[in-house]
Amino acid sequence: MYDRDFFLKKAQENLPVLYYKDITPDITEFLASTGDSVLLDLGEHAVGHFSFSFDNIEDFIDAPVRLIIKFGEDMREIEDDFSLYEEGLSKTWLQEEIINLDFPQKTALPRRYACRYIKITVDKTNKPIKLFDFCFRASTSAAVSALKPSEASDTLLKKIDLVATNTLKECMQTFFEDGPKRDRRLWIGDLRLEALTNYYTFKNLEITKRCLYLFAAGGRDKLGFLPSFVYDTPYYFSGSAHIADYALLFVVSVCDYYEHTADRTVVDELLDICKSQLESFRAILDKNLIVTRQEGWFAFIDWCPGLEGLTALQGVYLYTLERFSKLLKAIGDDEHEKYSLHLCEVRRACRERLYDENAGCFINELDNGQLSVHSQVWMILGGVVDGKEAEELLISCLENKNAKQPVTPYMRHYVTEAMFKLNMRDKAVQYLKTFWGGMLEHGADTFWEAYIPEDLDFSPYDNRTINSLCHAWSCTPSYFIRKYGL
Amino acid sequence: MYDRDFFLKKAQENLPVLYYKDITPDITEFLASTGDSVLLDLGEHAVGHFSFSFDNIEDFIDAPVRLIIKFGEDMREIEDDFSLYEEGLSKTWLQEEIINLDFPQKTALPRRYACRYIKITVDKTNKPIKLFDFCFRASTSAAVSALKPSEASDTLLKKIDLVATNTLKECMQTFFEDGPKRDRRLWIGDLRLEALTNYYTFKNLEITKRCLYLFAAGGRDKLGFLPSFVYDTPYYFSGSAHIADYALLFVVSVCDYYEHTADRTVVDELLDICKSQLESFRAILDKNLIVTRQEGWFAFIDWCPGLEGLTALQGVYLYTLERFSKLLKAIGDDEHEKYSLHLCEVRRACRERLYDENAGCFINELDNGQLSVHSQVWMILGGVVDGKEAEELLISCLENKNAKQPVTPYMRHYVTEAMFKLNMRDKAVQYLKTFWGGMLEHGADTFWEAYIPEDLDFSPYDNRTINSLCHAWSCTPSYFIRKYGL
Repeated sequence: MYDRDFFLKKAQENLPVLYYKDITPDITEFLASTGDSVLLDLGEHAVGHFSFSFDNIEDFIDAPVRLIIKFGEDMREIEDDFSLYEEGLSKTWLQEEIINLDFPQKTALPRRYACRYIKITVDKTNKPIKLFDFCFRASTSAAVSALKPSEASDTLLKKIDLVATNTLKECMQTFFEDGPKRDRRLWIGDLRLEALTNYYTFKNLEITKRCLYLFAAGGRDKLGFLPSFVYDTPYYFSGSAHIADYALLFVVSVCDYYEHTADRTVVDELLDICKSQLESFRAILDKNLIVTRQEGWFAFIDWCPGLEGLTALQGVYLYTLERFSKLLKAIGDDEHEKYSLHLCEVRRACRERLYDENAGCFINELDNGQLSVHSQVWMILGGVVDGKEAEELLISCLENKNAKQPVTPYMRHYVTEAMFKLNMRDKAVQYLKTFWGGMLEHGADTFWEAYIPEDLDFSPYDNRTINSLCHAWSCTPSYFIRKYGL
Repeated sequence: MYDRDFFLKKAQENLPVLYYKDITPDITEFLASTGDSVLLDLGEHAVGHFSFSFDNIEDFIDAPVRLIIKFGEDMREIEDDFSLYEEGLSKTWLQEEIINLDFPQKTALPRRYACRYIKITVDKTNKPIKLFDFCFRASTSAAVSALKPSEASDTLLKKIDLVATNTLKECMQTFFEDGPKRDRRLWIGDLRLEALTNYYTFKNLEITKRCLYLFAAGGRDKLGFLPSFVYDTPYYFSGSAHIADYALLFVVSVCDYYEHTADRTVVDELLDICKSQLESFRAILDKNLIVTRQEGWFAFIDWCPGLEGLTALQGVYLYTLERFSKLLKAIGDDEHEKYSLHLCEVRRACRERLYDENAGCFINELDNGQLSVHSQVWMILGGVVDGKEAEELLISCLENKNAKQPVTPYMRHYVTEAMFKLNMRDKAVQYLKTFWGGMLEHGADTFWEAYIPEDLDFSPYDNRTINSLCHAWSCTPSYFIRKYGL
């Protein structure tokens, strides 16, 4: 009905305006000879472009000046020796430039950086020089001035909200980036959480629509799933990965959008795609309605090492079916009954086939019987279990050292969501304060891509230095704080 | 009479227009993965700005691409490992950039380079990339299309003329640069030779006037000498060095200018400065009219290691006095007699006090009795000795292994000039062919800053890699070839 060009045109029409702010660091001028360095503190995490001037002190510079300019989201990054980085992800994500300047001049570096700290080292100058006129031009598509402060009375929650909205703000550029330092692409999993938090904070509907259209324009894999990520710079490219849970969360994102806007146009345009995602998923269920493993990197769920994700994925399917059938009902689409009937059947199948009575929890033979918080959380969110039983299940699994535990703030979001679903408000607040508050204790200006309280060096990529310290999927505390009036 | 502002205004009025030419190398496209490199050959030496594009091959680049881009005036420079360079002059003159590119894009490097070869190494890319759209935008203020070809019938001289005019062309930018790769400032010694060759080739009078005014605006040292070099980017600065022979050659440059243009305005504006330079020099003569050694780097003459330059400097003084008194006579200035009388006195003093009858050559006790070609050449150019005697003196000294020999093409120019003065036309041609022709045998596209046929690794700065291979003071073969109709 609608084609790629249509969706790309719609995406372009919803290109958000970027707001700019010039940040001048605490230090305004620095006199330097070879080997000297200066650390600039922007006082906040910022995403944007850096410029500065340099000039002679004595008379003339005699030879070009070589500077090494390093950008860090925190001081650990500034102190890390990038030359020691052994590659998992590309070393080129580490934000450092070596530049040669022929004459005293104002220099505007062409690239965009994500940082709070900037360290300039004078690698070589023949004569002393003066560095000055430091300016970091920060950008965001979040209308910061329109943001209402959180009404939380609790000081820690207030602070968590501040850092969470800041995290979202930094990731809101021309689309919802996953992290402005590294990757810088649009993933469905991040989009869903950013859009959700955005409805309660910056309320920028354009960017959400744009992102939905960018995925709608994407090519499908052989199963029919949407791409899990897209780029739009310098031209559109829809990602080569197709992850089943992300394809489902696209549908959820459309449901979220309608719930917060009642905008039928967008839903009508995207409805066929939503249905096709659910049909594609249905096609990979076995005769017992349980999802089967597919080739390659097929489900994400969490970065937890060694995690088996089939039961959790099954829960994501249920969660999506429930949201989607409600949407169809709301817009008067007769197919809603088909989806709700199917939802009931699959829920029943899960209880029968994935719940281990002896162990008292959800496992899956195809998951090698692995016990994980992830499985329980998604079975709860999928409505397979609820009430007191669900609460006990969740708490015991979170306390069970033999169970796979959540690693990413992304998965922690769904843990928290499950708690709110089960009316475990106090537990949820405690969970928020412990986990996100823990990052605050380490001086976070924005919430991180990965955080394991007992392992500050944890990285999904084998080296902490490459981690993103401002990551979209960590922004949802503001969603909880503002939605539930914490 | 005229002040600094006046001269700077005149210099600005004579800012030459730059002509641009886009050079595309032989290779137009290159597919690369991490570690691959491509060598681009511009086919000629060029001074200017480099741009190129890069793009995905497969689908997207996944992570920023890091390139190392190296510029070489010749292949030896490309092959030299810059990281091994131990500093004499600043390593920042070595032309190499490390750049990170976030997205497929056209990239125009902001700096100016002097090169024939460009080597691009892909230091890191996650996906194969395509490099293409290579363009080097060359600039010069020499009107190349207006240059008449040399009428030399000799093939080697024709080729020498071609490379010499090319050398001059490359150094002609917004002023007469000494070398476009390194230093990039205006020195009087280079100006004099460039202006001289320019009268017989590109005939750009604006640039010559501009350079004379730039020096006229300069601050004097305590002896009253003009600065030996000036910068004009990003703003005017007159150099901290004041070299006596260069101060004198400023006066010679004004005489050259009048001789080739009969332009009284410029001469009238600069006459007082010319007189003051000669007065300043006169003040450092002893009672016997022989120049006395001054503090610091006081005379240049040549880069010849260990050279004592007082006798040569005395010759530069005589040479200047002769030219200047002729100029005064030509413009009807009565002081010409004062200068020609003084010229005769000083010549006589030189013959009496600097000529060693036993050794049969010019030496100077203050020069530790050192024997050098430089002393003989400048005594000849100063008119202290001439005819057969001078010819024999020059030849025997050039063949004397115990005599200090010229090192720079700059000093070789004055050797050649002395030969023409003595009507040694054949010897002069042979000298041109041997010396400048020798560089051609090593593949020179432009003539070098330093060349010792028996020591190709010679550098005035302890490391050949830093040498300039396109140097203004090496361009004068075209002056000789065209002036004398060789």
